[in-house]
Amino acid sequence: MGKVYTGASTSIDGYVSGPDFSGFDKLFAWYEAGDVAFTVPTGAMTVHLTPASAAYFGGLIQTTGALVVGRRLYDFTNGWGGQHPMGVHTVVLTHRPLENNEHFTFINGSIEEAVAVAQKHAGDKGVGLNSGEIARQAIDARLVDEIFLDLVPVILGGGTPFFAPGKGYELEGPLSVIESASVTHLRYKVKYEAAQAE
Amino acid sequence: MGKVYTGASTSIDGYVSGPDFSGFDKLFAWYEAGDVAFTVPTGAMTVHLTPASAAYFGGLIQTTGALVVGRRLYDFTNGWGGQHPMGVHTVVLTHRPLENNEHFTFINGSIEEAVAVAQKHAGDKGVGLNSGEIARQAIDARLVDEIFLDLVPVILGGGTPFFAPGKGYELEGPLSVIESASVTHLRYKVKYEAAQAE
Repeated sequence: MGKVYTGASTSIDGYVSGPDFSGFDKLFAWYEAGDVAFTVPTGAMTVHLTPASAAYFGGLIQTTGALVVGRRLYDFTNGWGGQHPMGVHTVVLTHRPLENNEHFTFINGSIEEAVAVAQKHAGDKGVGLNSGEIARQAIDARLVDEIFLDLVPVILGGGTPFFAPGKGYELEGPLSVIESASVTHLRYKVKYEAAQAE
Repeated sequence: MGKVYTGASTSIDGYVSGPDFSGFDKLFAWYEAGDVAFTVPTGAMTVHLTPASAAYFGGLIQTTGALVVGRRLYDFTNGWGGQHPMGVHTVVLTHRPLENNEHFTFINGSIEEAVAVAQKHAGDKGVGLNSGEIARQAIDARLVDEIFLDLVPVILGGGTPFFAPGKGYELEGPLSVIESASVTHLRYKVKYEAAQAE
């Protein structure tokens, strides 16, 4: 079974969205910071990355077999127009489930259930968890192996934090640091043992 | 005149102190993460850094001519026992000034005044601003040239943010990324022009 990870483009003050869902132009400036044309698996969009970011993003897509997202992100993106751009099955954790289809499964249940369903779809590949609320729930359920931080040179001053206030956790790493333009890609491992011992 | 900068050991969720002033053992684990014995200018303490962190920290100390800190940090450290370990003159911004002495000047006034006094003491060297409240005030007053982020692999889950909620700012960089153990040293430049244009 593959790893479970969560990642996000994050401001240096820790937000994945600015006040009133602002700031995405800045958080995702790295999608257009280079000359490498990079088309997502579904063909839904082409971004222009630096070579470093293209290698990072390509690697992430290759190792991702399914996703778990929150309902807020699903609604905000309008269900990505029918399929997540990564082209993988996406589990939506929600109290107001819609009808399942070939690209989406709606789970009105626990984060454990959602991740388990995603893992069936992912096979040997990994499961990615998107959005702050989902990330915090999954870390608290000790489900997250790694955290990918796409650290963006901006102070947003408020909004949605990647990690909602709550329990603390020690991390190991960064396991890798990839310098790019408009972003630094950092990868960490969550150390649950240390957190439990406190 | 030297640069004005602010820097802090910061968790990946953006805190420079955990809940109830906890977490300093984790935020400053990099002070004891290596084999290079590093004694601060006053001789008050010796830490053990990696070669990368020692070069970074040594460079920072060499280019710092004076500091501006908040009263909370001054009180929390008990006035560093009489002198800041960096061995430079320290301006304390406070509504309850104490008597000035050869190592400390207490300013009951604006952040602009505090930085101006520190710059006189610093001569050609830079002025460092410590603690979150001071950093936010100084950035809002357009006084901060650079931000040093010592990014620590820990989620603190709450506490004192490096950047208190407020206005947003675009940054340039990272100008440098130094990988070490238990910390990643990142340096950014503040872009005030872009922020003003919004």
